Amino acid sequence: MTYCVGLCLDEGLVLLSDTRTNAGVDHISTFSKMCVTEVHDDRVLVILSAGNLAISQAVIAFARSGVEVDGSVQSLGSVPDMFAAAQLLGAAVRKVHGLDGKALGEHNVSFDVSLLLGGQIKGDGTRLFQIYAAGNFIEATADTPFFQIGEHKYGKPILDRVVRHDTDLKAGVKLVLVSMDSTLRSNLTVGLPIDLLVYRRDSLRIDLRRRITEDDPYFRSIAERWSAALRDAYRALPDME
Amino acid sequence: MTYCVGLCLDEGLVLLSDTRTNAGVDHISTFSKMCVTEVHDDRVLVILSAGNLAISQAVIAFARSGVEVDGSVQSLGSVPDMFAAAQLLGAAVRKVHGLDGKALGEHNVSFDVSLLLGGQIKGDGTRLFQIYAAGNFIEATADTPFFQIGEHKYGKPILDRVVRHDTDLKAGVKLVLVSMDSTLRSNLTVGLPIDLLVYRRDSLRIDLRRRITEDDPYFRSIAERWSAALRDAYRALPDME
Repeated sequence: MTYCVGLCLDEGLVLLSDTRTNAGVDHISTFSKMCVTEVHDDRVLVILSAGNLAISQAVIAFARSGVEVDGSVQSLGSVPDMFAAAQLLGAAVRKVHGLDGKALGEHNVSFDVSLLLGGQIKGDGTRLFQIYAAGNFIEATADTPFFQIGEHKYGKPILDRVVRHDTDLKAGVKLVLVSMDSTLRSNLTVGLPIDLLVYRRDSLRIDLRRRITEDDPYFRSIAERWSAALRDAYRALPDME
Repeated sequence: MTYCVGLCLDEGLVLLSDTRTNAGVDHISTFSKMCVTEVHDDRVLVILSAGNLAISQAVIAFARSGVEVDGSVQSLGSVPDMFAAAQLLGAAVRKVHGLDGKALGEHNVSFDVSLLLGGQIKGDGTRLFQIYAAGNFIEATADTPFFQIGEHKYGKPILDRVVRHDTDLKAGVKLVLVSMDSTLRSNLTVGLPIDLLVYRRDSLRIDLRRRITEDDPYFRSIAERWSAALRDAYRALPDME
């Protein structure tokens, strides 16, 4: 399983993914689910992926090397804007489906992949997309400024309650870490280390990129303080008569 | 969808269920998912149910009227102890599967039912069981003092962090209400009103039973204060350097 979350805020993007993959509970590995394309002053494209690892790796390989979209070959390095980047990923998903879908079906493996694409290309805005297994996609807006893929339910309540488009980046980082911490505690197939990336709108370069391991003092302090704060918060609630 | 949760604490039981059923998003109804059998000074048996409503209603009807278990006919009013009550529910589930399973399968409807059974029968302890669609069951222990059925993920993190067997009943009530509130906010197919029941160990009568509606001032105050406390808690977390 996987948990990835992306916030598209007025100040920029906050993206977080875990690194655990499992093919059965006795076959657990660490793979980054965050793929970054950065060309200073031109583009920052970040892809988070969930689902079948063979599919998502193939999708990203094709998106990097080039896929035909609407009659011309495009790649992450060449797409002119974010919408075209989302189309490129959709086309790559469909290409992999064309190549592998039938064989997977014969083995009763569903074509399970979902992607988040966040970033900015010079001349375009800072945007966040979610791409489905059918290759179609949606874009985050001020009304719904976050997307989650993979094991999303445990970490959703805190985001539902708090995230707004005008949440600042520092608060966004805290919120995605709390959301991840809740997921890590409730589902063993989501695991540390986790990859965090912060992109400040219009900077056209990555603001912060950090791999957070089990002994990361900041993440530990967030997790411990959050647990303590929740315990205090429920104790402070009034008792029923 | 449904969300039901049961805590088996040193002081007794806290049980909570929502009332929403849906057959498609345009066919939403209110049905209590809490079935109570109370004979003062003899037994209190509370069943919470999730899954296909036709199945769970049939299971409860058979458990009330009598099902053959191990060669003798038993009912909720006659079973001698809690283990036998769980066996009775398992036998009722298997009976309904025998009657309806094939026809449901022909309509591609899965045999989806899960139950929580909490209570006490004179001479036995206060116990909580979870019964599966196959009719088998597990019992809560001091290590794992709560069970959830239905849409359980949104409301699980707070329980994972806080509930212990020595949590007191008043705190247990607050925790299940917070857990339900998180679920209500994140999944529209779980809905108010909700049914709360508190049973104090060895009392052999219900301590508190309450239907909580949208304008219940206590639940509203819990929901509002919890939201405010979470916002305060994340604001109080330290920023990343």
